[in-house]
Amino acid sequence: MTEPKSSNLTWHEGHVTRDEREARLNQRGVTVWLTGLSGSGKSTIAVAVEQVLLQQGNHAYVLDGDNVRHGLNSNLGFSPEDRTENIRRIGEVAKLFTDAGIIVLTSFISPYRADRDAVRKNLGDGDFIEVHVDASVETCESRDVKGLYKKARAGEIPEFTGVSAPYEAPEHPEIVLDTNTQSIGESVTELVGYLKGKGYLSA
Amino acid sequence: MTEPKSSNLTWHEGHVTRDEREARLNQRGVTVWLTGLSGSGKSTIAVAVEQVLLQQGNHAYVLDGDNVRHGLNSNLGFSPEDRTENIRRIGEVAKLFTDAGIIVLTSFISPYRADRDAVRKNLGDGDFIEVHVDASVETCESRDVKGLYKKARAGEIPEFTGVSAPYEAPEHPEIVLDTNTQSIGESVTELVGYLKGKGYLSA
Repeated sequence: MTEPKSSNLTWHEGHVTRDEREARLNQRGVTVWLTGLSGSGKSTIAVAVEQVLLQQGNHAYVLDGDNVRHGLNSNLGFSPEDRTENIRRIGEVAKLFTDAGIIVLTSFISPYRADRDAVRKNLGDGDFIEVHVDASVETCESRDVKGLYKKARAGEIPEFTGVSAPYEAPEHPEIVLDTNTQSIGESVTELVGYLKGKGYLSA
Repeated sequence: MTEPKSSNLTWHEGHVTRDEREARLNQRGVTVWLTGLSGSGKSTIAVAVEQVLLQQGNHAYVLDGDNVRHGLNSNLGFSPEDRTENIRRIGEVAKLFTDAGIIVLTSFISPYRADRDAVRKNLGDGDFIEVHVDASVETCESRDVKGLYKKARAGEIPEFTGVSAPYEAPEHPEIVLDTNTQSIGESVTELVGYLKGKGYLSA
């Protein structure tokens, strides 16, 4: 059904390849998966990195609770099965963005190792960068920007990660950002430097 | 938590806006929703348009059965409920791509008007372009590229759209591409021309 056209529009048969999309954007698509406790700094780092990448002529996009929980995953709750399905769907969407040549930053607590490892396996080597945004419960609780820890301690939020539900830290993350001690700026610099060093960004 | 940095990396507080991403890509994000019977030419048109847009310096991406059914929607079957959830999820993913500033082309039969209208409502005015790839059952069956109509007639595929399951044609699509009579090239030219005329593409 594909045919040459009398107009100046031409195309080859079949899909555009990922390589072609990446060449157009002059970058490599990748999923940067930020995991850590509530208040560890995941979202702040993700949106800052997105901005810096855009300024540098790259194209990035953040997936977080704001644009996923109320949309794609609005029909999921917080049972163990739903939490797993939540992360599975986010991983699949991240895979599509990665295939589209985009640098996608995901910002979710994603407390279970098995769920994250399934995403890693699905994306494959080089397409998945696990970033442990590592702050202790004490650090996060002392910030408590949204007042969630206070509510969790008062028993108003059941199964709150770090308080009444487990957080399984990554065993072999590509990057650890210790936000107990380092500033957001230092974390952003480290993460952007990693992407640049590994050849994901345009020259 | 956002702070100025001693390095040369800077950012403002909060998310990058869609406008900022679109300015970077020099285009407007939009969902181009192709609907029509199996064999009507949806996927052929979608991938050709993606190629043409990339050649013209735009960034586009195709969502179709190949990259969605085996991934994000691998846990869905073909019951009415699952078909509705299938289209809902695709619509949500298309919304994320649109928000990312990408021109996303979706290629799914999507036979039910209510499902498509829900996606339209979710995306909102200007972000959703419904394209009816209009070929009659007779036309599609005469092509039968994948041999699916033959199987459907033999009763080997239950609930096959156009044969044993209904197709509800769009009542007010933005575009109708009559592929009974016009070539793929003509359809591609028409669709790209529409996007250009409406200001979605870079100048």
